[in-house]
Amino acid sequence: MSAWQAVILAAGAGTRMRSTTPKVLHNVCGVPLINYVVSALTNAGLRTPIVVVPSQAEALYACLGDAADFVVQETPLGTGHALAGVQESLEADTKNVLVINGDCPFVSSDSINRLMECHEESQSQMSLMTAEDIDQEGFGRIIRDSFGKMSEIVEEFDATPEQLGIKEVNGGVYAFQIPSLWPHLASLKPSSKGEIYLTDMVACVYQAKGITSTVHVSDPHDILGVNTRVDLARAEAVMQNRIRHRVMVDGVTLIDPSTTYIDSGVRIGKDTVLYPNTHVIGTSIIGENCEIGPNTVVRNSVVEQGCKIVSSMIDGTTLGVGVDVGPFSNLRLGCHIGEGTHIGNYVEIKESVLGSDVKIGHFSYIGDADIGRKVNIGAGTVTANYDGYSKNLTTIEESAFIGSDTMLVAPVHIGKNATTGAGSVVTKDVAAGETVMGVPAKPEPRKPSIRTKQT
Amino acid sequence: MSAWQAVILAAGAGTRMRSTTPKVLHNVCGVPLINYVVSALTNAGLRTPIVVVPSQAEALYACLGDAADFVVQETPLGTGHALAGVQESLEADTKNVLVINGDCPFVSSDSINRLMECHEESQSQMSLMTAEDIDQEGFGRIIRDSFGKMSEIVEEFDATPEQLGIKEVNGGVYAFQIPSLWPHLASLKPSSKGEIYLTDMVACVYQAKGITSTVHVSDPHDILGVNTRVDLARAEAVMQNRIRHRVMVDGVTLIDPSTTYIDSGVRIGKDTVLYPNTHVIGTSIIGENCEIGPNTVVRNSVVEQGCKIVSSMIDGTTLGVGVDVGPFSNLRLGCHIGEGTHIGNYVEIKESVLGSDVKIGHFSYIGDADIGRKVNIGAGTVTANYDGYSKNLTTIEESAFIGSDTMLVAPVHIGKNATTGAGSVVTKDVAAGETVMGVPAKPEPRKPSIRTKQT
Amino acid sequence: MSAWQAVILAAGAGTRMRSTTPKVLHNVCGVPLINYVVSALTNAGLRTPIVVVPSQAEALYACLGDAADFVVQETPLGTGHALAGVQESLEADTKNVLVINGDCPFVSSDSINRLMECHEESQSQMSLMTAEDIDQEGFGRIIRDSFGKMSEIVEEFDATPEQLGIKEVNGGVYAFQIPSLWPHLASLKPSSKGEIYLTDMVACVYQAKGITSTVHVSDPHDILGVNTRVDLARAEAVMQNRIRHRVMVDGVTLIDPSTTYIDSGVRIGKDTVLYPNTHVIGTSIIGENCEIGPNTVVRNSVVEQGCKIVSSMIDGTTLGVGVDVGPFSNLRLGCHIGEGTHIGNYVEIKESVLGSDVKIGHFSYIGDADIGRKVNIGAGTVTANYDGYSKNLTTIEESAFIGSDTMLVAPVHIGKNATTGAGSVVTKDVAAGETVMGVPAKPEPRKPSIRTKQT
Repeated sequence: MSAWQAVILAAGAGTRMRSTTPKVLHNVCGVPLINYVVSALTNAGLRTPIVVVPSQAEALYACLGDAADFVVQETPLGTGHALAGVQESLEADTKNVLVINGDCPFVSSDSINRLMECHEESQSQMSLMTAEDIDQEGFGRIIRDSFGKMSEIVEEFDATPEQLGIKEVNGGVYAFQIPSLWPHLASLKPSSKGEIYLTDMVACVYQAKGITSTVHVSDPHDILGVNTRVDLARAEAVMQNRIRHRVMVDGVTLIDPSTTYIDSGVRIGKDTVLYPNTHVIGTSIIGENCEIGPNTVVRNSVVEQGCKIVSSMIDGTTLGVGVDVGPFSNLRLGCHIGEGTHIGNYVEIKESVLGSDVKIGHFSYIGDADIGRKVNIGAGTVTANYDGYSKNLTTIEESAFIGSDTMLVAPVHIGKNATTGAGSVVTKDVAAGETVMGVPAKPEPRKPSIRTKQT
Repeated sequence: MSAWQAVILAAGAGTRMRSTTPKVLHNVCGVPLINYVVSALTNAGLRTPIVVVPSQAEALYACLGDAADFVVQETPLGTGHALAGVQESLEADTKNVLVINGDCPFVSSDSINRLMECHEESQSQMSLMTAEDIDQEGFGRIIRDSFGKMSEIVEEFDATPEQLGIKEVNGGVYAFQIPSLWPHLASLKPSSKGEIYLTDMVACVYQAKGITSTVHVSDPHDILGVNTRVDLARAEAVMQNRIRHRVMVDGVTLIDPSTTYIDSGVRIGKDTVLYPNTHVIGTSIIGENCEIGPNTVVRNSVVEQGCKIVSSMIDGTTLGVGVDVGPFSNLRLGCHIGEGTHIGNYVEIKESVLGSDVKIGHFSYIGDADIGRKVNIGAGTVTANYDGYSKNLTTIEESAFIGSDTMLVAPVHIGKNATTGAGSVVTKDVAAGETVMGVPAKPEPRKPSIRTKQT
Repeated sequence: MSAWQAVILAAGAGTRMRSTTPKVLHNVCGVPLINYVVSALTNAGLRTPIVVVPSQAEALYACLGDAADFVVQETPLGTGHALAGVQESLEADTKNVLVINGDCPFVSSDSINRLMECHEESQSQMSLMTAEDIDQEGFGRIIRDSFGKMSEIVEEFDATPEQLGIKEVNGGVYAFQIPSLWPHLASLKPSSKGEIYLTDMVACVYQAKGITSTVHVSDPHDILGVNTRVDLARAEAVMQNRIRHRVMVDGVTLIDPSTTYIDSGVRIGKDTVLYPNTHVIGTSIIGENCEIGPNTVVRNSVVEQGCKIVSSMIDGTTLGVGVDVGPFSNLRLGCHIGEGTHIGNYVEIKESVLGSDVKIGHFSYIGDADIGRKVNIGAGTVTANYDGYSKNLTTIEESAFIGSDTMLVAPVHIGKNATTGAGSVVTKDVAAGETVMGVPAKPEPRKPSIRTKQT
C-alpha cells in the first residue's frame, strides 16, 4: 500500500456537550473517545496520526502524548480549513490522506482498511465511508446522480423532505488523493458563517469530473458519532452491549446483561456468574466459577477461581482461590488475600497481605497489616496504623486470635497462637502463645475462656 | 379568552390498580398523578379546578388542599354523571368547561391551551384532544363520517375489527360550551350498567348538528393514562426518560440513563457524572464536576461542586465543595459538611455540623455533634448522644484528635488540639491540648505516641 | 386420553454454552431449565418422564432424583438416535410418545395438552408444535406442500433464502404414535456426521403417506430454547417480565420493573412498593403496604405488613409487622424480628430472636441471641458468641439497656431493666436492674447517667 497519513479532526468546539472538557476526551467505557479512533488507525496499520486541535489543547496533549502529532487550528473555520492546515506537516512521501472525526468510537480498523483499499484500487480522488439504517440524527445524506455516481453530500438541516428520505448517509471517514486534494480544498467556498466544510469536496470532485468512491459499513453503529451527552450515553450502551455479548459467548452467565458493566480490557473465566448491578472494570481478571454481585464493583483486581463476592467493592486487590467477601465490605487497594479466606460484612482492608484461611467475619478495619494463615479477627477490630507521621505495620502471626473490639496500635507484632481479649487496646508486642487483655492490654495468665468470637 | 372552568374527574373506582389508595394519588416520580394534572391546568392559566371525588375522599382533600375545589359524586354512575354534578358549583360567568381525567400525568399546558383556543375559534359545542400511534391499550377510537366530521367515539371493547384499525384515539380531555352542555348531557342514555358516559356526547352533539372539533397532540405520550400498575410503571419510565434527556442535554453525563433516577425538581451542574443505580431525588441541587454513584441515593440535599459520593445515602444534608463520601456511608438528616472534608466507609452522621478538612475515614456514628475544622475521628468512634431523656451535644474543637473506638458520652466538649486514646470512654470534658485515655478516660501526661489513626 | 409417555432429550453436548455444567442445568430465575420442562409435563398430566442423558450425568441425576427415569445415550448420535434408545424402557401400554427438548423453559402445559389432543383426534403418526414471529435464530422451517400439508422440516443452516423467509418454525415438541414410530425411526438415514435427526421424521412420515399435524402456540416465547448464554440471559428476561407483569397486575408497585428481580414462587401483598434494584427471591412472602429497596435482597424470608427495608440483605428471616431495617444491614439467617422493632444501619444479626420494639440503630453484631421487648442496643455492641468449641447464647431481658461498644462474651444473661455502660466488656451475668461497666464489667452503684445511646 502506498504511503498514507491519517488526520483526526478534533478542533471542533463541541458546544452541544455543554462541557469544559473537549468533546473527544469524554469517556465511553472509561476510555476517551479519541483513543478509540487512534487505536483503530493503529490497528489498521497507519503511522502516527496528526490530530488537529484547537488552541489551548493541553488536555488533548496530555491524553495522547506521543501517540499523535498535533496541528493547531487557531480559529474554528470548519473541517475543510482544519484539513488544509496539516499540509505543511505531511511527510514528503504521503500519497493519500485519511481523514476521520475524533468523536467516532466505533469505527473499526477493518472498515478503515476497506476504505483505503477501495480508494487505491478505484484510483479515486476522494472516497468515503457510508452507512444505511442509522437511528441517529444529524448525518449528511449521500446524493447520487442518475448513473448512481455520488454527486453531493447534503447536510440534514439543509436537506429537502425528499432528500431526508435518502437512507445512505455520510460516515465521516474520508480518503483523499494528495495531488488533487489541495487545489480542490482551496477552491471550496466558505459558508455564510465563513466556515469551509470538507463535505463540500464531494460536489467539488464530482463537478471536476474526478473519481469518487464509497465503502458501505455493514454495522451502522460503526459510524455513530458523539455530539451530545445523549449520544454519549448511547455510545456507552452500544459499547457495553458488544462487550456483554462477547463475554456471554465466551461462557459467562450475566443474569441481567443490561445492568452488568464490563470494561473492554477485562477477562472473565467460564462458568462465572455476574449478578445484576455488578461492575467489573479497569484491568480486572476474573477466574472460572466465581459468583460476583449483586451490587459489586471489582476494579483493577485479580479474582481467582471459585471466589464469591456480594455487595462489596474490590479495588487493586488480588483474591486467592475460593475467597468469599461481603456483603458491604471494601477492599480498598493493594490487598493480597490468601486462598479460602473469609471476609464477611463491613470489613475494610487496605494495603495488607492476608494468608490463607483467615477469618474476618464482621466490622473491622485492617490497614498496613501482614496477617498469617488461620488468624481469626474478631468484630470491631481496628488497626491504628498511622501516628500522624508515618504508616506503621501490624503483623499477626499464624493462628493468632484477635478478640472482639481489639485496638491494635501499630507498629505492633502479635505472635503465633497469641490471643487478645475482647476490648483490648494493644500497644505493645504480644509474644507467641501469650494472652493479653485490658486497656491498655496486659498479659493474662487465665487464657482458655477468652477465645470468643463471632460466627 | 372567555371564562373557563376546569373539571378533573377523579371519582372512578380504579379497581384495576388493586389498591386501597385512590388511583389518582399513586405517584409518578414521587408526585401523585393528579398533581400533574392540576399543575398543567394552572400553567395553562385556568383558575382553581373542580375535582369530582367519590365519597370518603379524605386522602384527596389532604393531597390537594386549597389547590382545588371538590364536588362529591355519591354513586359512581359514570363520567357523564360526574360532570353533571358540577353544574351547581360553576360560577355564573363560566362560558366553557374543560374536562380532564385525573390520571393523565403527561398532558401539557400547551396542549390544553391549544384545545381551548381551537374550541373558541371554531365556536364548537364540544372539542376534544386526540392522538395517534399510541402503544397503550384501552383508548376509544374516533369515528368520522364521509366528510371527515367526528361522529362518534367507540370504546375499544365495543369496537369492530375494522374500527380497531383506526389510529386516531380519544385523548380524554374535553371542552364543552356551557349553554348546550347541560341539555345534551341530560339527554344521554345510561348504559346497561346504568352509567352515563361522557364519550357519548360526541354522537349526541353530532346528531344535533352541533359543531365538534379535535386537536391533535404531537407527542402521543401526552394522553397516556394510568389504569393499572403496569401503566403506572410505564408512566414512571416515560417521565424519567424526559428528565434524563433534559439533564443530559444540559451537560450532565449519565453512564446508564436507564438506571439513573432523577426527580423533576432536581438541578444538576454541568460536567457532573452520575454512575449507574443512582437516585437524585426530592429537591436536591448538585453542583458542577461532581461524581455521584454508583449505588447512591441523594435526597433533598445540596451537594456543592467537585464532590464525590460512592455507594452512600445522603438525606437532607449539605456537602461543601470537594467533599468525598463513601462507600457505604449514611448521612441521615440535617448535616452540614465543610469543604474538603473526607467521609470514608461505614460512617453514619445525623444532625451535625462538620467544619472543613475533617477526616472520618472509617466506621463511626456521629450524632448531634459540632465538629471543628481539621478534626480527626478514628475508626469505631461513637457519640452517645441520648440519655433516654434528651438529645445531648458533642462539641469537638479544631484539630482535636479522637482515637479509635472512642466513646463520647454526651454532653461532652473536646478542646482544640485535644487527644483521646484508642478505646477511651470519655465521660467528662477534655481541655484544649489535653490527652485522655482509659475506661473511663482520664488525663494522661504521656501524649505523643497516642495519636494513632487509620488511613 | 390413551397412555402417553414423555421423553425429555437432555443428552446434547451443549457446547455453545461453554460450560462444564450440562446445558439443561443452567438456571433461569434460580431454577434449572429442565425443571421447567418436567413441571410443564407434570402439570399436563403426564406420568414420570424419561430423560435421555449422556454418560456421566451425575449432576442430572442429583437434580431430578425421583422426578424422572433416565436412559443413557452413550454416544451422541443425534436426537433420533436418542429417542430410539428409550424403546426398551417404555411400559407396555404406551400408545403415544411426547418428545421435548430439555432446554425449553417456557413450554406451557396448556400447549402440551393441545398438542396431545390434536394428535389423538387427528390420529396422526406425528404431531408437532409450531410458532411464528420468533425473534431468535436457529429454528427449523416448516415446509408445506401445495395442499398445505407439512412435508419436511429444513434446518436453518440448510435452508435456501426462500425457505428462510418462511415464518412457521419447528417448536421442538413432538408427539408420535407408537406402532409406526419405531420402523420410521429405523429408516432414517444418518447425516454426514453420522447423526440421526428427529426432524427428518416429518419427511419420512409424509413420504409414507402418514398423517401429520401441527399445533400453533399463541405466544412465540413458549418455544424459545437456550443454546448460548445470550439465549439464557434472554430467557431470564422473558421469565422475569412475566413475573413482574403478574405482580403488578396483582397490585404491587414496581418503580422500575426492569431492575426488580422476583422469583416465581414469591408472593407479595398489594400496595407494597418495590424500589429499583431490589431482589425478592426464593420462597419469600411479603405482606401489604411494605416498602422494599432500593438495593435490597430479600431471600427465603417472611416480611409482614408495613415493613420498610432499605439497602439491606434479609435471608431466611421473619420480620414482624412494621419492622424497619437499613440501610446497609444484614440479617443473615434464622432471625425472628418482633413487631415494630427498629434495625438501623450496619447491623448484622444471625440466628437470633428479637422481641417487639427493640432498637438497634447502629453498627452491631448480634448472633445466637434472645432479646426481649423494648431492649435498646447501643452502637458498636458485639455478641462474642463462639469460644472455638461451641455456639453460646446471649440472653437480654425486657427493657435492658446495652451501652455503646459493649462486648457481650457469651454465654451471658442480662436481666430485665439492667444496664451496661459504654465500652463495657461483659463476661458475667448481670442481674435484673443492675448496672455494670468497665473492662471487664463490674457492678456500678451510680447508675442514672449511664443510659446514653444513639438516635
